[in-house]
Amino acid sequence: MNLEQLDPKKIIDVSAPIFPGMVLYPGSHEVVFNSSRYQDTTSTTITFDSHTGTHFDAPAHAFENGRGVDTVSLSSCIGVCRVLDLTSVEEKIMVADLEPFNIISGERLLFKTQNSVDTWETFNESFIYIDGDAADYLAEKQVALVGVDYLSVKKFHGPDIRPHNSLLSKEIVIIEGLILKNVVPKKYDLIALPLKLKNLDGSPSRVILIDNY
Amino acid sequence: MNLEQLDPKKIIDVSAPIFPGMVLYPGSHEVVFNSSRYQDTTSTTITFDSHTGTHFDAPAHAFENGRGVDTVSLSSCIGVCRVLDLTSVEEKIMVADLEPFNIISGERLLFKTQNSVDTWETFNESFIYIDGDAADYLAEKQVALVGVDYLSVKKFHGPDIRPHNSLLSKEIVIIEGLILKNVVPKKYDLIALPLKLKNLDGSPSRVILIDNY
Repeated sequence: MNLEQLDPKKIIDVSAPIFPGMVLYPGSHEVVFNSSRYQDTTSTTITFDSHTGTHFDAPAHAFENGRGVDTVSLSSCIGVCRVLDLTSVEEKIMVADLEPFNIISGERLLFKTQNSVDTWETFNESFIYIDGDAADYLAEKQVALVGVDYLSVKKFHGPDIRPHNSLLSKEIVIIEGLILKNVVPKKYDLIALPLKLKNLDGSPSRVILIDNY
Repeated sequence: MNLEQLDPKKIIDVSAPIFPGMVLYPGSHEVVFNSSRYQDTTSTTITFDSHTGTHFDAPAHAFENGRGVDTVSLSSCIGVCRVLDLTSVEEKIMVADLEPFNIISGERLLFKTQNSVDTWETFNESFIYIDGDAADYLAEKQVALVGVDYLSVKKFHGPDIRPHNSLLSKEIVIIEGLILKNVVPKKYDLIALPLKLKNLDGSPSRVILIDNY
């Protein structure tokens, strides 16, 4: 394979725009852009949270001595993925919702749920999340990557930490905040690259799908 | 083409790690990571300049009403590229240095120069830059993307603004701060995605090459 014959029309951007005032997970530092013009160029001091918009969670997010987002395996982030149709799921994604998809080791999976109808105007505390048992199921399957269409894999203020901990303890890549509203559930190529933020718990990211199948 | 047969061993990361204390273009805001643990997770407030490390320049960097980095054509950033061997160039890249490469419209070009032997321990004011006439030459050729192995395409404190303005006025993508030290000059696939920072003048980026040729 190579990228010689890439058709630009097949690129689908599934990243949230980043701007001051955007919807954030409660408690996150707000996005601040402080631009200044000096001589012939403009530059900006950016302040934002490591978990702003479309972003990676690294093992260091869950574990105090966990690995940083700069060590995420790039091969986990680039390659074939499946967008699973979970739009009929209510409240949370459970094992029974995942079983029909015959998930296998090494897969990159993006979950499209009712979160994708959200307008991202205010934070929705009732977003659909991954159940703890379902997280364990994905960890046992040894998938490579799990992506969700809202700002956390875990229930809002929920006590069950397995959606982060079971996945991240197995070095399974987590991407949160994907914009899947206009994405038909099926097979794609995925390209998702975190910034090389040394030892950090997460990173905002640009994520695209390529409609190659 | 698709990414089904991607060989992870072919991925080359050409991005600078981002961390507090790293070498920056003089005048840039320093990198600050302010991490905190709340309940079961760690998050970080990140502060950095839009032109930190390996990064994109958008038209808004040069032009006060220029387009932001969120509008950069993704098809310019993904696809075949050539790493040109300019390691024998002294001081600046001139038209005569580029002519032998038979550059054509739409090409993505990364310039490997003596900058790539730099250790990135302190800022090197004498970095090799693109001459104004050479920038005009690249703009006339209508290349898609130009990447350099130091923190600016323009001479340090130099008065000739064409390296930014001639390229950005033609919507040619500029990537600065590439780590090409271990990259053999030849053809690769390039994947470079800026963050979707609304209306911003630039963006730190993860950039990779895939050794497919």
